[in-house]
Amino acid sequence: MQKPILPKGTRDFNSEELYKRNYIINIIKDNFLRFGFNPIETPSFERSETLLGKYGQEGERLIFKILKSGDFLKDSNVDEIKELKYSDLSPKIVDKVLRYDLTVPFARYVVQNQNNITIPFKRYQIQNVWRADRPQKGRFREFLQCDADVIGSKSLMQEIDFISLFDSVFSDLKLSGCQIKINTRKLLIAICDIFDCQDKFTALTNQLDKLDKLDNEVVKANLIKAGFKQNVVNSIFDVIDLSKNFTDNSELLKSYFKSSEIGTEGISDIEYIFKYFSKNNLIKSELIFDIGLARGIDYYTGVIFEVTPPKNISMGSLAGGGRYDDLTEIFGLKNMSGIGISFGLDRLFLIIEELNLFPETPINSVKVLILNFGNDFSYDLIQIANSLRKSNINTEFYPDSVSLKKQLNYANKNMIPYVLFYGEEEKENLYFNLKDMISGNQQKLSKDQLLKVLVEN
Amino acid sequence: MQKPILPKGTRDFNSEELYKRNYIINIIKDNFLRFGFNPIETPSFERSETLLGKYGQEGERLIFKILKSGDFLKDSNVDEIKELKYSDLSPKIVDKVLRYDLTVPFARYVVQNQNNITIPFKRYQIQNVWRADRPQKGRFREFLQCDADVIGSKSLMQEIDFISLFDSVFSDLKLSGCQIKINTRKLLIAICDIFDCQDKFTALTNQLDKLDKLDNEVVKANLIKAGFKQNVVNSIFDVIDLSKNFTDNSELLKSYFKSSEIGTEGISDIEYIFKYFSKNNLIKSELIFDIGLARGIDYYTGVIFEVTPPKNISMGSLAGGGRYDDLTEIFGLKNMSGIGISFGLDRLFLIIEELNLFPETPINSVKVLILNFGNDFSYDLIQIANSLRKSNINTEFYPDSVSLKKQLNYANKNMIPYVLFYGEEEKENLYFNLKDMISGNQQKLSKDQLLKVLVEN
Repeated sequence: MQKPILPKGTRDFNSEELYKRNYIINIIKDNFLRFGFNPIETPSFERSETLLGKYGQEGERLIFKILKSGDFLKDSNVDEIKELKYSDLSPKIVDKVLRYDLTVPFARYVVQNQNNITIPFKRYQIQNVWRADRPQKGRFREFLQCDADVIGSKSLMQEIDFISLFDSVFSDLKLSGCQIKINTRKLLIAICDIFDCQDKFTALTNQLDKLDKLDNEVVKANLIKAGFKQNVVNSIFDVIDLSKNFTDNSELLKSYFKSSEIGTEGISDIEYIFKYFSKNNLIKSELIFDIGLARGIDYYTGVIFEVTPPKNISMGSLAGGGRYDDLTEIFGLKNMSGIGISFGLDRLFLIIEELNLFPETPINSVKVLILNFGNDFSYDLIQIANSLRKSNINTEFYPDSVSLKKQLNYANKNMIPYVLFYGEEEKENLYFNLKDMISGNQQKLSKDQLLKVLVEN
Repeated sequence: MQKPILPKGTRDFNSEELYKRNYIINIIKDNFLRFGFNPIETPSFERSETLLGKYGQEGERLIFKILKSGDFLKDSNVDEIKELKYSDLSPKIVDKVLRYDLTVPFARYVVQNQNNITIPFKRYQIQNVWRADRPQKGRFREFLQCDADVIGSKSLMQEIDFISLFDSVFSDLKLSGCQIKINTRKLLIAICDIFDCQDKFTALTNQLDKLDKLDNEVVKANLIKAGFKQNVVNSIFDVIDLSKNFTDNSELLKSYFKSSEIGTEGISDIEYIFKYFSKNNLIKSELIFDIGLARGIDYYTGVIFEVTPPKNISMGSLAGGGRYDDLTEIFGLKNMSGIGISFGLDRLFLIIEELNLFPETPINSVKVLILNFGNDFSYDLIQIANSLRKSNINTEFYPDSVSLKKQLNYANKNMIPYVLFYGEEEKENLYFNLKDMISGNQQKLSKDQLLKVLVEN
């Protein structure tokens, strides 16, 4: 006998959890469709060479690897194996790996299907990804990502459209006060240009990326350790402060970046976006420019997004995204600028639960349970169930003629709103006896009346 | 540069394929709900010990194994590895395996959650499974299974209910003439009892299971090779013939099995089921008793189902299932008789495609594309798009002001039914110019009229 347990960092979902998850997923999906995205799906695993080498050393470590089928040692020299470390053996015995995110498979899809898709290509993808991360609150080894991307156009209208999409999703979820932070990588490049430290771009983004976890002073000290001069660090933090009120400070910001071509371009991009939203308010969210926003992912080249929960809630980001100019190039397709966003389902679930924003979701979708009063009625019960089902009423009969108490207990535990009594008296006198399990009311009904009550309630 | 390719036996799905797949999935899901099943989900991978040893030698070979994270050799003696065969090394470096079916994880779920569920427990589960099978037409290494099971009741009302469920799904899919074959394992056990060859039960089921692929004479010869006497083989094929017309031959069948208690029980079970359907016709399908139906899966103990396509279509089974009495016992929970069915999505897809039964499904769900006549209109385009989206109209704007030809070509290729012209004249004169891409008609509309046309069409 085995005691059944789950692999670390994975979960079963019961009906109640799934109905709640689907509430969120459906809102995201509906918004993706409304904004003109269509679905695609890719396999759960990809060939090793498709995913390995794309996520940096840290990411690579977290990828789940699938053993070759059959004799995975047959192509290896067994004498060699003895000498090998696991990291040398792994590529010899593994040929497939589980999906780590939806973006690299999407880039692979675009290149592989370039003759069948129309550019610009808009797709959404809602699928699981797997990471061998240390599990913690809201972080699992199997989790659902909800992504939308457009590839093949550099138009900034899309940056605006994605901000509207964020806001529309949060608005449908009744989630007020989320902060949609934006920046553009162009300005971070410009800062390195202005202070002539182009070689320190990665150090700059890595340190700034920690601003949401570390104190400003710690980040400043780290930047100095990374080789930035004190006056440069001060200037960077000054311009971050300025950025947080773009409307008032746009002239100061323009002048700060005026010596850098890419910096001027970056400010102009931000201005284009802010100008739209000065005339078209967001419904539920707040748009914040923040030059301190860096995002840890290497492939971003332009505008980047990160959405954080309302101020009173301490939790990591709910969504993110950005523009990438060169992602399909690794698979051989150049000049395909793309932009995309991603919602993480688990954090949204936690916040909606915490703020009590879930609508009343069932733990069970059965509308009526037909009680079982013995084998003499069993055919009748099945017939009644099937005729209710034909009217789209989710119907169950109790399969055994156990005590009434036990059957009502079953209905209660499953929160089934109605039970139907059908025994000798009902059969003889051609009526149905329906009990409302919430009010306790019981009604004698004809078949038409029964259908009417169950369809309308 | 890498040429992007997919792992063997896996697929990308484009929007058109997904809209079609979802058409089938939604019909199955709606029926599961109508019949009183609620969803659960389990993780994509389970601990090795949960799944290994459950599917027989052949199944075991097809399970995808996931390498331990980090240094997977750290607990192994490297000197030992040199001596080991892959089959000995595998358990040392693997601790998780991909889901092979939905039934064993379900049994694990029931046992693990026995204190939180109500018995009888009805669940449906629509998730991927993975098998390292040789890919061929309609058979893939990652594929979707749609299962419904009830656990905790032996009532035969459930056998009837699952037959109605099959029929209801096929009826909603407009698929006529599917053959729902039933048998019960009890009769196969009885045959071995009657002819005193209880030790040959597995040989009998294994050979009978090939009746859909091999000629009767070949199966007969194989049974004789397996040690059955000629007169026994003749008698088995006689009773198989009799079974195919249960209504006419029920008395003969009863008499055939009268010396066996389990045989008498089996015939009585079949009679109970047939009696119901003699008074309650199936809508689109045919119910056929067939003592030759054996099903290759070891855990079945009672009634078994297999659904084959209409006679004029040569294709394997579309669905199957059966009753199992002891499945949760491997995880430590006894006396939990269960019964379940499973639809395979891929074969249903092929048959519905072949019979041209898909409703008109879009390749793209966008209703209207707003054309781009230059940067002067870009904010207007986004505003118009968002106001249409608020009325649930799936809307896209073209993000670049390229040639009109290119934009209309984009709409045509994506089969977008409407395009909206909004340029200088429209902006000045406050109207919208909507073109129906199918009829070619073009209309000047106010905003209210525009909404009306797009919502109603």
